[in-house]
Amino acid sequence: VLDDYLNWERYLIRSEVDLPEEYQYQGRLYRLAPADRLYIAGMGGSGVVGDLIRDLSFVWGWPFEAVVVKDYFFRGGDGLMLAVSYSGNTVETITAAAAALRRGMPVIAITTGGKLAEMGIPTIKVPKASAPRAALPQMLTAALWTLRKIYGVNFDTPSSLPYDERLADRLVKTLGARPTIVAPVSMQGLAYRVKNEANENAKLDPSVEVLPEAHHNWIEGASGPIMAMTSPDIPAEHRTRVRLTVDLLSGEVFEVPMTVGGILTFLKHVGIATVKIALARGIDPLKTPRIDELKRRLP
Amino acid sequence: VLDDYLNWERYLIRSEVDLPEEYQYQGRLYRLAPADRLYIAGMGGSGVVGDLIRDLSFVWGWPFEAVVVKDYFFRGGDGLMLAVSYSGNTVETITAAAAALRRGMPVIAITTGGKLAEMGIPTIKVPKASAPRAALPQMLTAALWTLRKIYGVNFDTPSSLPYDERLADRLVKTLGARPTIVAPVSMQGLAYRVKNEANENAKLDPSVEVLPEAHHNWIEGASGPIMAMTSPDIPAEHRTRVRLTVDLLSGEVFEVPMTVGGILTFLKHVGIATVKIALARGIDPLKTPRIDELKRRLP
Repeated sequence: VLDDYLNWERYLIRSEVDLPEEYQYQGRLYRLAPADRLYIAGMGGSGVVGDLIRDLSFVWGWPFEAVVVKDYFFRGGDGLMLAVSYSGNTVETITAAAAALRRGMPVIAITTGGKLAEMGIPTIKVPKASAPRAALPQMLTAALWTLRKIYGVNFDTPSSLPYDERLADRLVKTLGARPTIVAPVSMQGLAYRVKNEANENAKLDPSVEVLPEAHHNWIEGASGPIMAMTSPDIPAEHRTRVRLTVDLLSGEVFEVPMTVGGILTFLKHVGIATVKIALARGIDPLKTPRIDELKRRLP
Repeated sequence: VLDDYLNWERYLIRSEVDLPEEYQYQGRLYRLAPADRLYIAGMGGSGVVGDLIRDLSFVWGWPFEAVVVKDYFFRGGDGLMLAVSYSGNTVETITAAAAALRRGMPVIAITTGGKLAEMGIPTIKVPKASAPRAALPQMLTAALWTLRKIYGVNFDTPSSLPYDERLADRLVKTLGARPTIVAPVSMQGLAYRVKNEANENAKLDPSVEVLPEAHHNWIEGASGPIMAMTSPDIPAEHRTRVRLTVDLLSGEVFEVPMTVGGILTFLKHVGIATVKIALARGIDPLKTPRIDELKRRLP
């Protein structure tokens, strides 16, 4: 998995994806046209694609409202759905996608295979990695090229994701202390991914608090170390909220450019740092025994 | 504040609210008609109204998609907005409401007064309490009667919110242990309110994890005590996810009917329990010095 992170740039999709303008599914016609609302369904390491697209669409003012769906149930009205499942067999995502299709909503799949790839809807197939969470570059860029095709959004495709050992070391130290990860709404998805990497790779359980909301409740109870996230690309109101948090309670601040390159470079370091924490704790970062056990026990 | 919680039933609004069918604001006409999307803007103790309406609308299949807005920024398209601010002066809520109005979206205010009550939009005024978080019964029922008027939704108005000392004691013990609060998507708002009461009253910082998503990441890192929430009123898929969590990791399970009476009765006990924890820790449950300090420092 460490090799995967170190070679993340190889998995970036660098060219347009092929999509029809319309398709038939079970005798019904679906048109892939720009819609005001973009639903992105997906769980865990695949679901983070939706979280990051929400961040990016907020920061860069993309012409749709991004709504993340992390459940079996989907009751949205008009819109367009991206269904992201690394395995293609995630029961929540498949169930939500089927519900969207029944409602007449066009769905595009992003997956490595599985049932999702066999549904007969437009599907972007991406290459495999050692684990779903390690396949973020290909899943995220597949989604972004899809949005370029449909909405004409612009984004950067980084030529490299340079590794900075000092940043990795700082992340090892900060995340190893089991912090509360504090981020503004505009960086919520990024913060959530940091938590998830700490969960799955390092088997730690830091929590996430989102600003400005956390200034209305969490701040009174805050007791542990703080990992704060900010960016030159977010609104001044959000930057101020992060700064005030650290002024009041102190904390380790990470500044991340909210570009595709900035996000993936930072998350590559988070991946490596959480693997390093696991190895230092004598834990296998790749194995997820509880997730496997849950899958066995699910009816 | 303890008296407020003990007397919560007195603050329930028991009769229809008065709303026009349309109104003028800054020379523009706004119609209060059912819309597919209901945005509920609000922060902290006022914002929880939106969280709980999202839970209720999910469980009871209400005819709108509830979207919670906890930010200055609002970029939604079509819909209807409830702007909930206890003081009426919450800068995030006022800014979001103004943005919605500029987009031609009708906004209804729920407040005790302040700037929001003076904007010249339809406003439901509710009675004050010792703190915004203690005014939940009147803010929530004001919002519900508004939704009855516009969408015709049905809900229960409980005649009483009976106090059960054993439940309060169990909550003192469970929340005092700084648990991770685990709840399904359909009870997410309820879980979040529990966290917030622990933050503000008891000055503790439990975290919240939402199922099924938490089974894809958090479960691997889970290390502390667990407070699990379930209900007879939620889908079997959600109940199963809660049960599997407790089977695997153990935890204290709280079963809450997802009715207005069930939710408010439970939250009354949570309020009382978090006040009791504060008093046992020698802390003033009513004072929120960090929140006050942040307000002073905000530009």
